[in-house]
Amino acid sequence: MGGRIARNMLKGGYHLLVWNRTASKAEEFARLGAEVAKTPKDVAERCHIVFSMLTDPIVTENVLTGTGEMRGISVLEGVGPGKIVVDMSTNHPLVTRRIAEKIRSKGGDFIEAPVVGGAFIAEQAKLTILAAGKKESVEIATPILQTTSQKILHVGDVGAGTTIKLILNLHLWINMAGFSECVVLASRLGVSPKTLTEVFNNTVFKNYVTEYKAQKIIEDEWSPVATVDLAVKDLRLAMEVARDVEVPTPLGSIVKDLYTATAQMGMRDLDIMAIAVTYARLANEKISRLVDSGHK
Amino acid sequence: MGGRIARNMLKGGYHLLVWNRTASKAEEFARLGAEVAKTPKDVAERCHIVFSMLTDPIVTENVLTGTGEMRGISVLEGVGPGKIVVDMSTNHPLVTRRIAEKIRSKGGDFIEAPVVGGAFIAEQAKLTILAAGKKESVEIATPILQTTSQKILHVGDVGAGTTIKLILNLHLWINMAGFSECVVLASRLGVSPKTLTEVFNNTVFKNYVTEYKAQKIIEDEWSPVATVDLAVKDLRLAMEVARDVEVPTPLGSIVKDLYTATAQMGMRDLDIMAIAVTYARLANEKISRLVDSGHK
Amino acid sequence: MGGRIARNMLKGGYHLLVWNRTASKAEEFARLGAEVAKTPKDVAERCHIVFSMLTDPIVTENVLTGTGEMRGISVLEGVGPGKIVVDMSTNHPLVTRRIAEKIRSKGGDFIEAPVVGGAFIAEQAKLTILAAGKKESVEIATPILQTTSQKILHVGDVGAGTTIKLILNLHLWINMAGFSECVVLASRLGVSPKTLTEVFNNTVFKNYVTEYKAQKIIEDEWSPVATVDLAVKDLRLAMEVARDVEVPTPLGSIVKDLYTATAQMGMRDLDIMAIAVTYARLANEKISRLVDSGHK
Amino acid sequence: MGGRIARNMLKGGYHLLVWNRTASKAEEFARLGAEVAKTPKDVAERCHIVFSMLTDPIVTENVLTGTGEMRGISVLEGVGPGKIVVDMSTNHPLVTRRIAEKIRSKGGDFIEAPVVGGAFIAEQAKLTILAAGKKESVEIATPILQTTSQKILHVGDVGAGTTIKLILNLHLWINMAGFSECVVLASRLGVSPKTLTEVFNNTVFKNYVTEYKAQKIIEDEWSPVATVDLAVKDLRLAMEVARDVEVPTPLGSIVKDLYTATAQMGMRDLDIMAIAVTYARLANEKISRLVDSGHK
Repeated sequence: MGGRIARNMLKGGYHLLVWNRTASKAEEFARLGAEVAKTPKDVAERCHIVFSMLTDPIVTENVLTGTGEMRGISVLEGVGPGKIVVDMSTNHPLVTRRIAEKIRSKGGDFIEAPVVGGAFIAEQAKLTILAAGKKESVEIATPILQTTSQKILHVGDVGAGTTIKLILNLHLWINMAGFSECVVLASRLGVSPKTLTEVFNNTVFKNYVTEYKAQKIIEDEWSPVATVDLAVKDLRLAMEVARDVEVPTPLGSIVKDLYTATAQMGMRDLDIMAIAVTYARLANEKISRLVDSGHK
Repeated sequence: MGGRIARNMLKGGYHLLVWNRTASKAEEFARLGAEVAKTPKDVAERCHIVFSMLTDPIVTENVLTGTGEMRGISVLEGVGPGKIVVDMSTNHPLVTRRIAEKIRSKGGDFIEAPVVGGAFIAEQAKLTILAAGKKESVEIATPILQTTSQKILHVGDVGAGTTIKLILNLHLWINMAGFSECVVLASRLGVSPKTLTEVFNNTVFKNYVTEYKAQKIIEDEWSPVATVDLAVKDLRLAMEVARDVEVPTPLGSIVKDLYTATAQMGMRDLDIMAIAVTYARLANEKISRLVDSGHK
Repeated sequence: MGGRIARNMLKGGYHLLVWNRTASKAEEFARLGAEVAKTPKDVAERCHIVFSMLTDPIVTENVLTGTGEMRGISVLEGVGPGKIVVDMSTNHPLVTRRIAEKIRSKGGDFIEAPVVGGAFIAEQAKLTILAAGKKESVEIATPILQTTSQKILHVGDVGAGTTIKLILNLHLWINMAGFSECVVLASRLGVSPKTLTEVFNNTVFKNYVTEYKAQKIIEDEWSPVATVDLAVKDLRLAMEVARDVEVPTPLGSIVKDLYTATAQMGMRDLDIMAIAVTYARLANEKISRLVDSGHK
Repeated sequence: MGGRIARNMLKGGYHLLVWNRTASKAEEFARLGAEVAKTPKDVAERCHIVFSMLTDPIVTENVLTGTGEMRGISVLEGVGPGKIVVDMSTNHPLVTRRIAEKIRSKGGDFIEAPVVGGAFIAEQAKLTILAAGKKESVEIATPILQTTSQKILHVGDVGAGTTIKLILNLHLWINMAGFSECVVLASRLGVSPKTLTEVFNNTVFKNYVTEYKAQKIIEDEWSPVATVDLAVKDLRLAMEVARDVEVPTPLGSIVKDLYTATAQMGMRDLDIMAIAVTYARLANEKISRLVDSGHK
């Protein structure tokens, strides 16, 4: 995702100084006209505005503030007054607030800008962005973010962007499981996934899952738009955040277990909708040829 | 609901012969121009088409086929060739199939026509109807159903209508709980229900709950459009059906428990969205003044 | 179970008048010296004390009080002053209270006497009995119950016996699932079921499951002492009772779904401990050869 | 717990060199005859055998191998051939395996020795110890561990001790919740916690919770033997471990949420049995005066 966004920025005419933990990945962008930096600190020293898109909160905190092996060469070391750091990762709100505090203590500013949408939407530059932080800083970042987004929502202070991103994810995974539960029960009672989906889409209960994801079940076709593995990773983060602020999440907890089972039963690299196959296996309801193929 | 539909039929110019277990309720319709029948059998003998809308599967089976105290005076006793029985109740698909078989053995036909939408929508004659059964029978019933509905979907054979009605309900209750889980976690992380809802409604994740129900939380206003008690009753039926066909429903099971707790903690007569208050109490997150008002 | 208890009574020297819905089953007892009755009413008219052991609450209520096809020939019709009815079934406490009221209104008395223990223990006449009802009635039944039991606990008024029986079952099913969860997680971390069980049994956490059931997992041997099907049926009753008194049972609900899945995945006739195989399949953890054998 | 064990060692006649992150805590032991070390490295350099008992896996890994602020002054820096490190913490099995590898690479050895039992049992020197690692190393540690334990079980290689400790905990928390579910349902049906507990203890279903913990409910007395806060912390670790090895834990997940709710509803410092109050609140069943006292 980070790569796609960077390409959009280059296409938008911006000059980029790029850094990646894997040097070869940065080199790709050199061929597209970007410069390659040696360290995150290097990027922060030479740019007015720094964008990050990293794997998880631990890596992000490390690269942005030097809490691990990046000590001494992190973005924090290169930041100063007037500079803005924009984190676009799916992050932990308590971590981004900690990062913001450190960046601000050096005179810079930090905003969140996590994205809604997948690879295909990113390539079309139609991501939705959940910007959070000081209004002025968001405004400065906006033209650059617009190279990759048609809709930038300013959702509040730092923490609000990552929170809402996490919540949209949590909501999606619960709905994927909820709809799967409905599909399998309906099928057992003689109503096919196709009929069920059509009726949903003909009523006020039409939603993202019935409109865009149910097709996977209907066609018994599981090539990934997003993988089960991603769902497991996202749910892991959501559950960690809930745990850290001590909020019970009974549905999230069960859905986390169901996605974990989906991964373990050999469907890790299939589309996220494959949780429906797990439901079907538990009920021995033959909605997919994968129901009979056993656990591996 | 049955009363509202009957009134729509009268307004539509149809002649009605009505029966209700509570005589006084039938008398109301006499004042509106309907005739009052002595028994369900009486209705079936004198009408070409019979509509039923009853509390639960046991009562419906009893009134339509005489399995309990209606033995000898049920609709079945009055049914014959050419007659059609239309059940509009939220019923159990295995029960409606049993009823259909008996009605057909007498030469009549049976179709399902459960409704989607509440009291207000019924009064506006804008219900959606999930018709199921033989095409010709559905066509005969259609003009009469149109007095109460702008959208009649023919969803399949007998069983399909009640199945889909149950599934739409199950899906709704899971989504009510899922969104509540999201609202409470977001609030703990500093994002208000209002902001969260606005962002949902600005993305592809907009859905029935975020559009029509979230307002209850935002306004901390719990007068019922539909009550928690109704959710408990609906979930009870959905869980019974799932049990009878042995399909695991882990999310439905937990949501059933959460709605049961909502009823028990003094919120039985509040709007169905009050499950969010239960979530908030479990997390001690003050999104509503009801969080502090204790358990009764 | 009813047959085994009747045989113990005959061995104990008691004269028996037996009735069974399936005549051939009653005939078996004729060969052992019992008389055969024509109806439940017949039994109640000719005996001072009547024992029942039936499939479920609906059948029991029907046979004892004539709520269905037994109308006019049920035990209630034959009961009078001085007679005692003893129900040994796993019943619904609200149903037994209703039965007791009717029996008492005819001048008789009703007590509950559900049993703890399986087929093997019944044959050894070592069942534990949870007697509930009036002290004098329990005392009158005691010598006859002792032909099948070494331990008769008087646990309270009518309703208490069936309640405690249900609760002991619910507790057992939760523990079967809980231990399975432990076994699979431990195995993944390198600790075998055998080692884990030995350690449990060497600490204060030793319990019925670790002492008597874990062996099934260790030996990968699943011939039933009690079947998964029985667990599904027992949990169905426990969930119905909880629903009828509106008590949330989150663990019971999930365990009900896990046992349902176990039955659906082809293990209905295996021992109740086979829920561990379901857990193992969900985690792809090879604790049993059944993990690889797929879903049917 | 670490302090109590150290005191037992001193009583047993062993010479101790102690270190604690909080210097004042180490000083206490100086008054009892121990020497105080400046760093963990110091301890490892001067002792043949090193015992650790720390808060969580992160702190333990830091103090034993210098992964954080202890870099350069950790136990690892002082370890060499012939030395044995014994970790008695409730730890993460993947972390202890990592620690073992590092200690062994320096020529020393590492064993696990987590304890079963609480403060009171520690003072009586009657803890059970789950020793894991090389047989010879366990044998060397045994006499010292015996100053605090009457039962030392050698459960396998490094990882097995912490795994079993985690599993015993997970099992306990599930049983605490399971029994609470039973108590509240039984109470609603008219059977008191006292009667229910007595019957359990009179059958094969007697277990640690019914024997040692149910008394809290019966007496409505909640002073902590172990606190709800400890349960939340223990479940957090168990869920992290399960997540790291991708094993679904549906009961553990729900119980984690129920204990989190118990803490949030104002019962964090009460005894772990207070999860029964959470169940009672959800069902509005008055088994404790705390049911009515609301959420804070």
